[in-house]
This record gives sequence, C-alpha cells and structure tokens, in this order.
Amino acid sequence: MGSIITLTTDFGLSDGYVAAMKGVIYSINPEATVVDVSHVVQPQNILQAAFILSTAYSYFPKYTVHLVIVDPGVGTDRRAIILKTPQAQFVAPDNGVLSYILDTYASQLLPDSTRVKLGPDLKAYAITRSEYWRHPVSKTFHGRDILAPVAARLSLGMPALSLGDNIDTVTALPLLRPKHEAHQITGHILHIDTYGNLITNFKESDLSGSAQSSNIIFKNCIIDGIRPVYAEGTGAFALFGSSGYLEIAMANSSAAAYFQAKVGEEIIIRLKSKSIGGFPIDGGK
Amino acid sequence: MGSIITLTTDFGLSDGYVAAMKGVIYSINPEATVVDVSHVVQPQNILQAAFILSTAYSYFPKYTVHLVIVDPGVGTDRRAIILKTPQAQFVAPDNGVLSYILDTYASQLLPDSTRVKLGPDLKAYAITRSEYWRHPVSKTFHGRDILAPVAARLSLGMPALSLGDNIDTVTALPLLRPKHEAHQITGHILHIDTYGNLITNFKESDLSGSAQSSNIIFKNCIIDGIRPVYAEGTGAFALFGSSGYLEIAMANSSAAAYFQAKVGEEIIIRLKSKSIGGFPIDGGK
Amino acid sequence: MGSIITLTTDFGLSDGYVAAMKGVIYSINPEATVVDVSHVVQPQNILQAAFILSTAYSYFPKYTVHLVIVDPGVGTDRRAIILKTPQAQFVAPDNGVLSYILDTYASQLLPDSTRVKLGPDLKAYAITRSEYWRHPVSKTFHGRDILAPVAARLSLGMPALSLGDNIDTVTALPLLRPKHEAHQITGHILHIDTYGNLITNFKESDLSGSAQSSNIIFKNCIIDGIRPVYAEGTGAFALFGSSGYLEIAMANSSAAAYFQAKVGEEIIIRLKSKSIGGFPIDGGK
Repeated sequence: MGSIITLTTDFGLSDGYVAAMKGVIYSINPEATVVDVSHVVQPQNILQAAFILSTAYSYFPKYTVHLVIVDPGVGTDRRAIILKTPQAQFVAPDNGVLSYILDTYASQLLPDSTRVKLGPDLKAYAITRSEYWRHPVSKTFHGRDILAPVAARLSLGMPALSLGDNIDTVTALPLLRPKHEAHQITGHILHIDTYGNLITNFKESDLSGSAQSSNIIFKNCIIDGIRPVYAEGTGAFALFGSSGYLEIAMANSSAAAYFQAKVGEEIIIRLKSKSIGGFPIDGGK
Repeated sequence: MGSIITLTTDFGLSDGYVAAMKGVIYSINPEATVVDVSHVVQPQNILQAAFILSTAYSYFPKYTVHLVIVDPGVGTDRRAIILKTPQAQFVAPDNGVLSYILDTYASQLLPDSTRVKLGPDLKAYAITRSEYWRHPVSKTFHGRDILAPVAARLSLGMPALSLGDNIDTVTALPLLRPKHEAHQITGHILHIDTYGNLITNFKESDLSGSAQSSNIIFKNCIIDGIRPVYAEGTGAFALFGSSGYLEIAMANSSAAAYFQAKVGEEIIIRLKSKSIGGFPIDGGK
Repeated sequence: MGSIITLTTDFGLSDGYVAAMKGVIYSINPEATVVDVSHVVQPQNILQAAFILSTAYSYFPKYTVHLVIVDPGVGTDRRAIILKTPQAQFVAPDNGVLSYILDTYASQLLPDSTRVKLGPDLKAYAITRSEYWRHPVSKTFHGRDILAPVAARLSLGMPALSLGDNIDTVTALPLLRPKHEAHQITGHILHIDTYGNLITNFKESDLSGSAQSSNIIFKNCIIDGIRPVYAEGTGAFALFGSSGYLEIAMANSSAAAYFQAKVGEEIIIRLKSKSIGGFPIDGGK
C-alpha cells in the first residue's frame, strides 16, 4: 500500500515545523518511512516546489505518498486535495503546487487558464472529512493538523474517498513552454540548482535534428555546444541533465553566478540551418 | 516503549557529527526511528534550542526520546540528565536546554533563580552509569559517547534508574514573561522563524477581552491588528501562530528583515480602553 | 547483513537529487535505513567529502554501506567502485573520495602517487554488472542510476562480486602529513567545522612528550596551550577534538572567522625544549 511519505516544504531547517509534522505522521503510522525531498523551497514559491517535486517523485516506489506544503493561502477557503496518478499519491493545497505532475498527464485546461479538468488517469479529492484531522486545527498550520494526518492515513491504505470528496478540476499554474519560430526557439530558466546549473524548459524533443548543433544564446553570449557530460565542458556549455532538461553549466564553476542568472530569464536557440550570412548575436535577451 | 528518538543540536549540516551520533544510536537500537528536529541551532544558543524543541516535541508519540545537544560546557562537571514528563523523555546536558519543558509543569523556582525543584509530574536522573556509555569517552563529544547511547537504551525500554541516579532539582534558565501594567503589556521576541516572522512571548491568555483590539507597537510602528490567517494580512500585521504565540508577520515578505529585528527585543501592547485623547506611539522601544 | 546506507554528497539541500537517490534505494530495499552524513560538501570537493566521511563512518554498525557521491568525472571513463574493509562497505566513484579510509589500512602507494595497491584487509571491485543498474542510465547522474542501486543491493546482502569485478588498485589522493623537523613540526588545516574550529592533521601521536607543552603558531599568533575541554579555553586555544585531531578553537566564537583561516593553511608547532633564548614567532606562515 506504500508506506513511504515524502515531504516538500518551504519550512526551512531552523524551526520545529518539519519535526512537528513528522511527529503527527508517526503518531498515526509508526511504521511510515518519511523522506525529505526539500525544506528549503523559497518561502511561498509554489512553482519552485512544483518543479523540485517533479524531478524526484517518479523514482519512489509506486503509491508513495508525496506531501507538499507551500501554502501561502493557509486558513483561507483554498481547498486541500489528494491527487492520485497511476504512479503516486499527492497531498497538497490546491494552489498549483502539483502543476508539473498534472502537466504529465493528458488533462484539459479550462478557459480560466488556472484550472484543469482531470484526464482519465487521474483522480482528485477535496479533503473534507475532519474526523481524520488533528484537533484543534491551527488556522496557520494545516500541514501539521490536516495534511500530515491525511498523508499518514493514506500511507496506511485508507481510501482517498474516506478522506474527502471526488472532484474533477484542480488548480494548475501556467507553465512556461518553449516557443518555436522559424529561426529560433525561445525557452526559459525553470530552476537553478545547487551547482549553479541553469535548468531550462528545453527537452530533447524540442531540439530535433539540426537544432542539436545550433547555437544557444543567453544574455548575448553564445553558449558552447551540447556536451554529453560535465567533465567535457569548457567555459559555459550546455548538456541534457538527469531530468531530461537542457542545462547551461560552467566548467568547475557556477553558471548562475557567472551570468547573474535568475529563474524565468529567456534562453534562445538559433537554428543554424536557417542562418545565412552574418550571425547576429544581439538577440539573446 | 517508544522507539522514536529526535535530535536537536547546534552541530550544523556540514560535518560528520550528527551522523556519528546516529551511527551510535543504530548500533545500540537498530530498530530506532531517528528524526531530526533541527541541527542549525546557533552555536551554543541554549535558549534557542530550548524554544525550538518546545514547539515540536508534543506532536510525537508518547514516551518519544528527545535528545538535545547544545553543550558549551561539555567535559566540565556540568551534569547530563534524563528528564521524564507524562508525555516524553528528554536526554540533555543540565544547562537549561529543557527550560521551556520545565516551565510547562508546576515546578518551584529555587532562590538562586537558575534551578527548579521538580513538581510531582516530573522525574529527573543524573546520568552516571558509565557501563552504558561508548568508550573511550571523548572529552569534547559527550553527545556521541554518553548521551546518544543513553537515549538509544531508553528507546529500548531500559529504565532511567538503570542509567543514572534520581535527582530532584535541575537547571532552568529564566524565561522572559510579558509584564502587565495598567496601560500596556510588555513582551519580547522569543524566536525568528524561517519566514522572518517574529514570534513573541504573548499568548492568547495575555490578551483577554479588550486587549485583542489594542495596538501592538514595535520599534515605533503601530502593527496592524490581529488577523486570523497570513493571507489576510497587509503590511506588518499580527496573528496567533501554530504554537499559540503572537507573531508579527509581513505580507509576502520578512518582518525580521523589514524591522531589522532581533531575538530579545521588546514589543508593547497598548491597552486601547485606557487610552483617552492622543495616542502616543513613541514608547515602542 | 547491514541494512543501513549512509549518504555523503555535494548535492545540496535545495534540489530533488538526494530524494531521487533515496527513492531508488527504497524501491530496491524497502527495509533500508538511510542516513544522511552530509549533502553540503562544497561542490566537487573530493577531499572534503573524504574527510567528513572518515569522521563518521566508524560509528555505524559493522558492514554498513556508505554511499559517497562527489563525482565531477561522472559519465567519463572514471570507474565506480565498491571497497570493503573489515568494518564497512563503501560505494563511490574511484576518484579519491575514499582516501582517508584507504589511509587507515596498510596499503602500498604506487609510483604514480595517485593509486594504492590494496593491503590484505581490503577488497575492491569495479562496478560493471549493468543488469543491476537503473535504466536508462543518465550520463550525468550515476549516483541515482548506478551507485544507489548497487548500494541498495549490497544492503540486501548481494555479494560485491556479483556487482563487479575484483580489482587490486584504487585511486587515493595524496594526504597532507605533519612534517617533523628538529625544532618544529609543520601541519595543515584539514577541515573547518560548523563552529569555526580549525581541525588540523596533528594527532596525539605527533605530539609526544615535551611537544604537548610546546607553542602552537598560526598566522604569527601563539595559540594558547592545549586545553582538555572547550569550556576551559580563553581566546584562541587548542585541544584534541572528538576525532583525535588537534583543533584550534576560539572561546565563545569562531576561530575560522577570527583568523580568516582556510583549509590547507600551515600550522607550526615549535618544540619548546629546543628553544633557547629568544623565541621567534615570525615563522607561522
């Protein structure tokens, strides 16, 4: 039934908040295996948590429960949800923190562009059954009092339908997609990792054929081509990282520091086959 | 019997010290579940560790063993102790790191104002039985060689009396209390959390009746009133946090950074019902 | 058979990399106990990881599997290895990250001075049996796809010989040794810990007899003598720390900050018995 529970939060490491949640989990399921994904998500950065989770969850055993708490709307009328995929179970506020998970499955974006109608592989539940929560419920820490107890009960095999009500739409934040044009593809930095690698939203499928040998341009610099491994790069170079995204890296150094890069900045791939004559490089920004 | 052991230390995350303690624990009790509370307590900040522990321990199953190592006096003649409450077991140097736990129970402050005589719900033991320690004992790391083995044996169900000798007084550092006067109550910042929220020592019981609608003053600023949840605050505002303390928060930002706040600084609650005519705001410091 | 797996990496705490490895481990051995040693090794600092591991591994139960991933050469033809000692099992890239472990056992330095021929107490294996890896194997994350699966299978009791081929030499980086001369011994800073203590490569055996009362000189300062415990030090002082190395510490403060110290800097012990007349202190650098 899956007795692992992972935690992804913006609680930091210097307070007792994470431990309080773990105490609640172990009080309900003493046999749970609790695994930290990250607790140093930037405060209230929903999309960063969504991205980090998306790079880790699929390596866990089937039906693992992933508890995600980045929750600036705690205590308001935002819903808390359970999302079930064929691979995993998620417990989170319904604020978009599962956007990358939802994006993996065929779901239909609703006209308001912040909600999706769930595809056939997904089931979602609004968490409503308060008899399974910890009481009294703090208005400022639903992670401890509502979501951790729900995750612990899921890990014991309790059906999601006992914990809430079936729903067919959930919140999904718009994700940046590479924009394909005649002469170039425009992407963005999704994440900057510990090493200062700039993880972009280009996937290998975006760079078919000739594009692989095309120029990658960031902040007016031409990035040296795509290398197979970090050790073969010199200066600033690109490679496909372990989650399948194109990364900009810097040999023995931090690309983020060198470029003073920020999440959300644009990266351009100039398609070489179309470039005739002079190759302008002033369009990197 | 309680097979969870929590760890609260100032060891940081970049050395092998925490892992060495865990290795010792698992060598004695391979079935223990070891949970980190925090390892980034400021070096030698006994009261900070005491506060963090106090916000987390009560959520763990009954009889959980809480091991706390902030120990500037390691190797001197300061005692190491086991403290048992109806809820939990603590293993720590006898230096005040359990002050908030002791404060929860009816205990009698001794005239020297740094020691308490234990109330009826508490039992304490000086750790003396060296046959249960790891040898040779390092003079600089009793956490690894004395306290971790003792915590591991407690988690196996060994009676505290086998590990040490009953004592009836233990060290408690003086805790800051709100000071009630005719026109105001003066409190202090106990802790600054990851989000930059300023956690004060005001509890709801300090702010009965009219006080709830009174002005909160910090560094000459009037803090916007008490909100029920973070999402309803604008600018600097107050709310009761998940551990029951009044917090000063800042909408979408860090109150600590905005106010350049420090632990120990004063916060004033002006009682509105007494305020007639002009409302002076120059007394915030 | 040892079901504990420890992790020492430079992955940091803000990405999903550590969790991905743990997910892979639990998918293969759901009963494993996974313990973090440190994930904040400086990026690609092989010797720092080697040192931290060496201060922690020996406290774990016999046959514990220690997985170490600081791997700037990932995806190149550098080997990945299993090293077995009488005490423990290690899984790591063959890049010197096990240098302190190898140094503990009698091994023979080869003429190229970066490889050792293993002594009788050690066995090593090149990891070659790809049927036990996770596929597809990322060229940039062998920790997740090769080394974590191998560590998990070792923790289940699979023989190392099923996972790879016996080898008799492995990589060892040259370690700094104290240099003994007539009037002084010259050592170095190996590591700076969380408290700012400067951990040197002097061991008690280097400071026999009179040397214990000799002067320790760092950056033109005479360090106050060797104290038994931190609490008895004033100003800058020395003591033997919990791993047996001489440390320079600073009372209630950080010696690293005070001296602006860096790993690798020299520390001199002037042998007092030889010092006649004036005592020059200008040789600290």
